[in-house]
Amino acid sequence: MSSDFIYLDHAAATPMDSKVLTAMQPYFSELFYNPSSPYSPAISVRRDYEEAKHQLAQSIGAKQDELVMTAGATESINLAFGSIKGHVVTANIEHHAVLAAAQIRDHTLVESDARGFISAESVKLAIKPTTELVSIALANNELGTIQPLRDIAQVVKQEREARLGRGDTTPIYLHTDASQGVGQIDINVARLGVDLLTLNAAKIYGPKQVGLLWAASGVRLSPQIVGGGQESGIRSGTENVAGVIGFATALSLASEHRKYESERLTVLRDSLQSQLLAAFPEAVISGHPKHRLGGHLHISFPDLDAERIVFALENRRVLVATGSACAANFGTRSHVLTAIGLAPEVADGSLRLTLGHLSTEENTSEAARIIIEEITREYNRTTK
Amino acid sequence: MSSDFIYLDHAAATPMDSKVLTAMQPYFSELFYNPSSPYSPAISVRRDYEEAKHQLAQSIGAKQDELVMTAGATESINLAFGSIKGHVVTANIEHHAVLAAAQIRDHTLVESDARGFISAESVKLAIKPTTELVSIALANNELGTIQPLRDIAQVVKQEREARLGRGDTTPIYLHTDASQGVGQIDINVARLGVDLLTLNAAKIYGPKQVGLLWAASGVRLSPQIVGGGQESGIRSGTENVAGVIGFATALSLASEHRKYESERLTVLRDSLQSQLLAAFPEAVISGHPKHRLGGHLHISFPDLDAERIVFALENRRVLVATGSACAANFGTRSHVLTAIGLAPEVADGSLRLTLGHLSTEENTSEAARIIIEEITREYNRTTK
Repeated sequence: MSSDFIYLDHAAATPMDSKVLTAMQPYFSELFYNPSSPYSPAISVRRDYEEAKHQLAQSIGAKQDELVMTAGATESINLAFGSIKGHVVTANIEHHAVLAAAQIRDHTLVESDARGFISAESVKLAIKPTTELVSIALANNELGTIQPLRDIAQVVKQEREARLGRGDTTPIYLHTDASQGVGQIDINVARLGVDLLTLNAAKIYGPKQVGLLWAASGVRLSPQIVGGGQESGIRSGTENVAGVIGFATALSLASEHRKYESERLTVLRDSLQSQLLAAFPEAVISGHPKHRLGGHLHISFPDLDAERIVFALENRRVLVATGSACAANFGTRSHVLTAIGLAPEVADGSLRLTLGHLSTEENTSEAARIIIEEITREYNRTTK
Repeated sequence: MSSDFIYLDHAAATPMDSKVLTAMQPYFSELFYNPSSPYSPAISVRRDYEEAKHQLAQSIGAKQDELVMTAGATESINLAFGSIKGHVVTANIEHHAVLAAAQIRDHTLVESDARGFISAESVKLAIKPTTELVSIALANNELGTIQPLRDIAQVVKQEREARLGRGDTTPIYLHTDASQGVGQIDINVARLGVDLLTLNAAKIYGPKQVGLLWAASGVRLSPQIVGGGQESGIRSGTENVAGVIGFATALSLASEHRKYESERLTVLRDSLQSQLLAAFPEAVISGHPKHRLGGHLHISFPDLDAERIVFALENRRVLVATGSACAANFGTRSHVLTAIGLAPEVADGSLRLTLGHLSTEENTSEAARIIIEEITREYNRTTK
């Protein structure tokens, strides 16, 4: 990106890491072969592709043949939902991709609390005898609230055991979209206790339109895209060799730097939050005070217009979001802010500031200073 | 690719053109923004993305809002098939992606003639009152036979008019997978007379896992992947900005050089064909003698084992295919060769040689010489 911008929207998109691009580069030109071709240079490309899948699987504590490579989180989510027939439980603060996939099926939306937190208890109450899928994101993309996945996994496990106990063979699976937060939270599938997990390369400094769906070995997926039989017949189409190799590099880097980066971002975010709250005591911080992604800061300035602030900040070379990028596109109030019960005059003045690789102590302090100036100007303007 | 290989498998995969990579490069890093974000650097990326779609549309004589960007031809085909409810007519020599999409629906397979040619008459006979989709590839990927799309379009048009005449509102559409041959045949959608058209960037020196489905304005598509509402709600997921920009560059280059390149490849292919036939008069050329892609040469050496030949040629640094890359993966005889009635002992000795950008007069002559040596050696071995 142009180095003169201060980018505070890492949850919407991330620039590709130079190491990721370096890893991909040979597969654009020199090693361009179709991995299904029979000669050894193509077989070697097939091996590199499989090795990248192996590396991805290792990063989440899974086996390579449990991964299906997709064109991103949205496709992964659709593949997970498309593989089940029964009732679905998800939450009213989930990403549009999950909500849209739920809405075309029999579903129940669990309600978030005011912190954007989905309790295991509320999931338990929503499960019906016909429920086959529970889908809760690892972390909310707008608020950064980290969900109690392990507790929810316990609830799903109890339901599964209760069904087995009464001879009911209706399956029930737990899916999580872990796209948001994979750079900051441990995503070992066994420790999370999930059955299905979605990841997206574009959120972790990898290529766009590259994702995966992990499914535990007992889960049977139904192909949404049929054809040449790639990805064990679950997702046909000539493999995105460069993309998957870039994804593997990105996930390895994310895993390697997770602890350090998460702590670094938390320090920066806490400092930004303190400075803004000191200047505007009436500002409202949303998201869970404790269980929140280190780089996420959702802050509302009552009675201000977030779109005006985004524009004013952009003029000062600071890039921020009003909500999730997808939702922003519709020009409507974020469903997440409505769900957590923010009053309209608070919700409409909300910014989502998300820190990441491009954030430094220096540019975050600079951003704080500029945001304070511009918010002050807006408050002065509106109270005149 | 390593310059010491002679690559004769352009139908399976193509190396990315350096101009394509140059066009994509800024969108990996500097211009990485989510096109749905609200600030002007992201809006500018959105504009570049839309401009690339506009350019793609122009290359096929269509309008930008009639394009849906996908992760490749297989997804495009699945999207086209998934949008119709009724009976489907396709051919027994189609690509696996089309056959697989047809097989999960009520369908009729039109039989190819011995040249891999699908007559409009045979399509006409297969259309039933419930037929809603006819899908015939522009050119067959194994044989290179170019299909009489305009004649087939006439048949579909007549059926549509007959239905309208009797007040029957069942729609009928013509879809073509034009992935194979877009670099060599005019693909103006109006001139082809199709209603739906699939293209793939990976076959024309563009990135892998990038494709499009064009649908005429009257055709209503049903989304297979729901979520954030991208691509007018037909195909959700954060846009593959770099990929689509690379695709637009690749298609522009293909259109610009089509005439010259098609003639150049035809000369090279004809020379290769003559040399091989002169050396092996018993060899069988498949595909239409006149209506055939310039770069395609399908040749069978009776009683030889194609897999052995592929291996022997690879040892001499010449890369060829036994059939389509996808089919090769299954280790079974090509369904196309069975469909055109090649005797097993002829089919099993078949090579698909496909020329393209990496082909020169020099390396094609060199390949002819090496193929002749190796085939001679194989015949000597088998007749001992």
